[in-house]
Amino acid sequence: MSYFRPLALEHASRLINHGPTLLVTSAFGARRNVMAAAWSMPVEFTPPRIAIVIDKRTLTRELMTASGAFGICLPGSAAVNLTYAVGSVSGREQDKFERYGIASITSPMLGVPLIETDCAAWMECRLIREPHTEEAYDTCFGEVLAAAADTRVFADGRWRFDDSNTELHTIHHLGGGSFVRSSNPISAEPL
Amino acid sequence: MSYFRPLALEHASRLINHGPTLLVTSAFGARRNVMAAAWSMPVEFTPPRIAIVIDKRTLTRELMTASGAFGICLPGSAAVNLTYAVGSVSGREQDKFERYGIASITSPMLGVPLIETDCAAWMECRLIREPHTEEAYDTCFGEVLAAAADTRVFADGRWRFDDSNTELHTIHHLGGGSFVRSSNPISAEPL
Repeated sequence: MSYFRPLALEHASRLINHGPTLLVTSAFGARRNVMAAAWSMPVEFTPPRIAIVIDKRTLTRELMTASGAFGICLPGSAAVNLTYAVGSVSGREQDKFERYGIASITSPMLGVPLIETDCAAWMECRLIREPHTEEAYDTCFGEVLAAAADTRVFADGRWRFDDSNTELHTIHHLGGGSFVRSSNPISAEPL
Repeated sequence: MSYFRPLALEHASRLINHGPTLLVTSAFGARRNVMAAAWSMPVEFTPPRIAIVIDKRTLTRELMTASGAFGICLPGSAAVNLTYAVGSVSGREQDKFERYGIASITSPMLGVPLIETDCAAWMECRLIREPHTEEAYDTCFGEVLAAAADTRVFADGRWRFDDSNTELHTIHHLGGGSFVRSSNPISAEPL
């Protein structure tokens, strides 16, 4: 049974507002891939748009350019080893879904592979072609067409990180395989 | 006494690799400003370059465009109230440094104001003009010319978040004044 439920698109930016490390999924023809990406951000609330850095030498970049689509999955802390693994090897040599036994679903709108197991949320995105920034900064823009989240950790447009869902806390890469987890909530008080 | 020490530029991207919420500082002529920004990312290691979303209607955008420079400060959890406050009011109506009693230094290369109190690190950036992405996505690119970090939390190119420096743990905005803190380190194991 899946705890994933569709998300109102107006809340999609909140999924990555706090800077989690992501998995990027892509497919074209018979090929598919998944890689890790630490460099991403929302750029617009409505329509929900994001920017993400994908090295131009990667298979992911090749597949997303060919298909015009990519998927974003938010690994929970239970997927930290997988995240680091798929970020360290190239999909050109092997199908990483097969190698690591990753279960995937097919996204409803664009048909990209998406991962729900040990993940907190996903988005499927249409690539907005921006040849200059893609070339100069490896920065790709995308529009989020659909999103879903595990209701145990994100519901009613809000993250709820607590002791009941530590496996789904998002992870934030510090470098070299070291991560911190989204935890220790704190609320700002008016000054 | 300041614990801030200059950072090797090759390590600058690590300051924001994990997605912290930032303070953006700017100045031109007699005016200066500070605002909060949750949407940023590195885009290149060497030279260190970043992208950050700054709404085109803000005073910050006006000042950074006029001066060609901006500062990035990483608020620690001790600065969470200040971060939310400067993200909620406009500098057009008042000097936020004065209103909130914020001490600042002047950056060594570009002369932008920078905040060290209750902050974990800073960077000073030259704005790389990209009129199309600035207009279409409010996305501004910058090159980091100098950076420094509080050695109690970042040294030898690495973050060290532990119980000894909780006040300097970076903060990550979930929305509506709720933040998580960079904590609960976890290391990926090979699969």
